[in-house]
Amino acid sequence: MSSPSTASVDSLSAVAPAAPVLAAPVGSAVTAADIVLTGDRPTGRLHLGHYAGSLQSRLALQGRCAQTIVVADLQALTDNAGRPAHVAAHVREVVSDYLAVGLDPAQTTIALQSRLPALAELTMLYLNLVTVARLERNPTVRAEIEMRGFARDIPAGFLCYPVSQAADITAFRATVVPVGEDQLPMIELSNEIVRRVNRTTGTEVLPECRAMLSDTPRLPGIDGRKASKSLGNAISLSATTAEVRELVMAMYTDPAHARVSDPGQVEGNVVFAYLDAFDPATEEVADLKQHYARGGLGDVTLKRRLIEVLHNMLEPIRERRLMLTAQSDLVDDVLADGTRTARLRTEAVLHDVRQAFSLTS
Amino acid sequence: MSSPSTASVDSLSAVAPAAPVLAAPVGSAVTAADIVLTGDRPTGRLHLGHYAGSLQSRLALQGRCAQTIVVADLQALTDNAGRPAHVAAHVREVVSDYLAVGLDPAQTTIALQSRLPALAELTMLYLNLVTVARLERNPTVRAEIEMRGFARDIPAGFLCYPVSQAADITAFRATVVPVGEDQLPMIELSNEIVRRVNRTTGTEVLPECRAMLSDTPRLPGIDGRKASKSLGNAISLSATTAEVRELVMAMYTDPAHARVSDPGQVEGNVVFAYLDAFDPATEEVADLKQHYARGGLGDVTLKRRLIEVLHNMLEPIRERRLMLTAQSDLVDDVLADGTRTARLRTEAVLHDVRQAFSLTS
Repeated sequence: MSSPSTASVDSLSAVAPAAPVLAAPVGSAVTAADIVLTGDRPTGRLHLGHYAGSLQSRLALQGRCAQTIVVADLQALTDNAGRPAHVAAHVREVVSDYLAVGLDPAQTTIALQSRLPALAELTMLYLNLVTVARLERNPTVRAEIEMRGFARDIPAGFLCYPVSQAADITAFRATVVPVGEDQLPMIELSNEIVRRVNRTTGTEVLPECRAMLSDTPRLPGIDGRKASKSLGNAISLSATTAEVRELVMAMYTDPAHARVSDPGQVEGNVVFAYLDAFDPATEEVADLKQHYARGGLGDVTLKRRLIEVLHNMLEPIRERRLMLTAQSDLVDDVLADGTRTARLRTEAVLHDVRQAFSLTS
Repeated sequence: MSSPSTASVDSLSAVAPAAPVLAAPVGSAVTAADIVLTGDRPTGRLHLGHYAGSLQSRLALQGRCAQTIVVADLQALTDNAGRPAHVAAHVREVVSDYLAVGLDPAQTTIALQSRLPALAELTMLYLNLVTVARLERNPTVRAEIEMRGFARDIPAGFLCYPVSQAADITAFRATVVPVGEDQLPMIELSNEIVRRVNRTTGTEVLPECRAMLSDTPRLPGIDGRKASKSLGNAISLSATTAEVRELVMAMYTDPAHARVSDPGQVEGNVVFAYLDAFDPATEEVADLKQHYARGGLGDVTLKRRLIEVLHNMLEPIRERRLMLTAQSDLVDDVLADGTRTARLRTEAVLHDVRQAFSLTS
């Protein structure tokens, strides 16, 4: 990792204005005393689904509480062990996406999971406190095992990754973890491990955390299915204007809406899902829905509006990303600095946990 | 851990002569180029079973090749998570036993597992390369699960510990691992992981290792069952003369050998098992066996001989241990020095493996 460069990190905020925050899906529950932990697996560039679902929420939290984002390259290997170079290549991309949308390393710590050895050490300790049966019962893991077609051939690392997540959460003493509803069992397991560590060692060495559920609906892919890099149905944050146009034009609307004059279905219409997520003129969008439903509003008109909305939103992000590409060391420096900060924090927690477990330090 | 003290480490060889090596159960297969790795779980003091089974073999290897002994405190926690202080307390005892029998830190590296973070990091990487089904098929793990009565409540760390052992072995680039026959599946799994790492990363980053099977039969406990701290049927290396006398006098011989004149059974007779292991006068022992079998040799006579043999063997070990107790920092220093050496070595291997996995360093 390259050496720290505070100058270039500080200069970042001068590069371009932060992208506008359209929604603040964060409950009033978060206080300045909270420590929020989130993360992404670097298996592809971030897309509009990430923007609507988590990046905007992180932007809203920025400055309101302590916030760390972990680039989970080790967790990405749990089901990408066969293509480590692919994972490695996307670390810089993901960090570039963070900076491009306006996450500020002076306020948000961005760290690389594989450079935080305390996480592996905590995972090893926690693995002794969880039974295999308990891990196999985890509904999130079960669903993902099915989705990925692992069946009996689950990598052991994949079965154990909720324990690794508990290590991530506790290593930062995170008090708040934003998650989707499907990830609530992970939080439950993490708190179970915390209680077991505290009971086993007879000290309150770790705090429990609470889940922060997003009130933003999940943004679908352009075909209406779950947005996913592998399905090629997501619009990446770094997509060019031409790519955005092409993908919006291919969006699923209402197959029964054959002529402009026909009444159209708003529910399940991907264009409206995106307008709901990103069009700041919410009253106009409501009118458009009524117009579309009674007939007389064409898909092309709607899609042109969405292209315009996305252009306005993505243009500053794109410019910022271009600046980052020009300052080639900056992304590396941000990650090195954040990782260094995170390393100190996680080593301190590991020290406390080791001491509680009577491990000589 | 206390600071290094080369002086006190060097002075160790002057404390007392090394215990005599009665057998060299090591095949001719080991060369000066080999790296041998062994370890013990610090869950109790070492006993005569360890001496016959592994300590003598380590003494025989000393100086003939590179040798590292890992005090496996983390592995001990896989089934002792509820009593970490018990494990911690036995680390010094086990190292004291090593030094007392004559293991020389100038020739044999003695390191503490929990102070080698590279092991946890390698374990995390390897967990992605092994399926849960593969771990569940491991006969050693299955046998131990049954023995420990875990059933469905196996701690995840226990299921995964063969992967952790593969991390230990590979972190030292060990080429030779002395094991009992029941542990051969562990070695097979470790080599499987090595091949998978090399294939996945497209480099020969790790070497395979070979098992070194001991030709010494396992020494039974005084009751003829497997020697175990929890059964209280083992004679610890640090037992007092009185304790040794008492335990030998309680040894299982031949229940049908009621009178001295009765013919006695040699097979399964614990006293003969110990004489075979430790009496340097092997021809006399052969004569005694014949005498015992035809009748006319009493148990008490035999046991007195064994007490004498054990006294001669244990006395220098006991003296050495007493010296160590007087120099209270010496054991800590030896462990700190060895751990530092091991840390450099394992970090270097981790660096290579990380690089092979395209993880930024």
